[in-house]
Amino acid sequence: MIVLGIDPGLGTTGWAVVASDGAQRVLRASGTIRTDPKEDPARRLLKICDGIRSLLSDYTIDAVAIEDVFMAKDARAALALGQARGAAVVGAAMMGVPVSSYAALEAKQAVTGNGHASKEQVGYMIQALLALSDPLRPADCADAAAIALCHLNRVVTEAVRNEVGTR
Amino acid sequence: MIVLGIDPGLGTTGWAVVASDGAQRVLRASGTIRTDPKEDPARRLLKICDGIRSLLSDYTIDAVAIEDVFMAKDARAALALGQARGAAVVGAAMMGVPVSSYAALEAKQAVTGNGHASKEQVGYMIQALLALSDPLRPADCADAAAIALCHLNRVVTEAVRNEVGTR
Repeated sequence: MIVLGIDPGLGTTGWAVVASDGAQRVLRASGTIRTDPKEDPARRLLKICDGIRSLLSDYTIDAVAIEDVFMAKDARAALALGQARGAAVVGAAMMGVPVSSYAALEAKQAVTGNGHASKEQVGYMIQALLALSDPLRPADCADAAAIALCHLNRVVTEAVRNEVGTR
Repeated sequence: MIVLGIDPGLGTTGWAVVASDGAQRVLRASGTIRTDPKEDPARRLLKICDGIRSLLSDYTIDAVAIEDVFMAKDARAALALGQARGAAVVGAAMMGVPVSSYAALEAKQAVTGNGHASKEQVGYMIQALLALSDPLRPADCADAAAIALCHLNRVVTEAVRNEVGTR
């Protein structure tokens, strides 16, 4: 199974393509979609949407996992983030790929065992879990990889549960 | 000039197509894009985006004016609203139509002269300004029409200003 993890943001959207190869998780690619604050806001959102669509046409992706945000600095920040998230989700839905949402807390919990882990701890565990020679940069990519791993964990757990259930 | 006004919302997005015919403003059409809370969240956002794209292909629209929200009940509400807004803006941007944003306060100010007017006052003024026999229902459509009128007012004001400036 191959998952595209997304850490949405109006200025920087991090993404990571993670494949499960048995018990091992493999990073296929990662990067960011950046938009210029000086650009027209509608063009910025379209760029995010188009960026996700391009990724889904460039890679064979089974599922999209995107960070859900329950808290933000303030309502203004929540609105900006919500719009970026909406643009990314529309891009995925247009390509017909199922979208799952995970709170940052769940993703941190999944990769570090602690929902309140620091950026450094997440970065360290992502490097270890994906057997990377260097930390994944920028942090937006590491966060996106954590979201993808969180989804893979859930899928594996559910598959095991179903298997046990049907025995 | 023909403007599509949008009052975005995850559950109900109101829209109104308003044309300026000299000093008179004419309502060409209005309606809502509704999504089912039981539906997949990504499908709901796609429905909003597709709905806006359909309107822009059904009507000849020069500009899209959409409500900007600076305040929301809480961050959670702001995120939901932001996502719906992002989906609508992406729909417009995909069709290459310019998008302008107005705060609800500006739109209320433009149609009633009072930025803190009630829903009833906005509804009453929309009926009067567009010479409608009945109030525009639901209120989401009246709010969308107010946004469209706000944009038309600004465009006319700027045109006059430019004309005076070049004399």
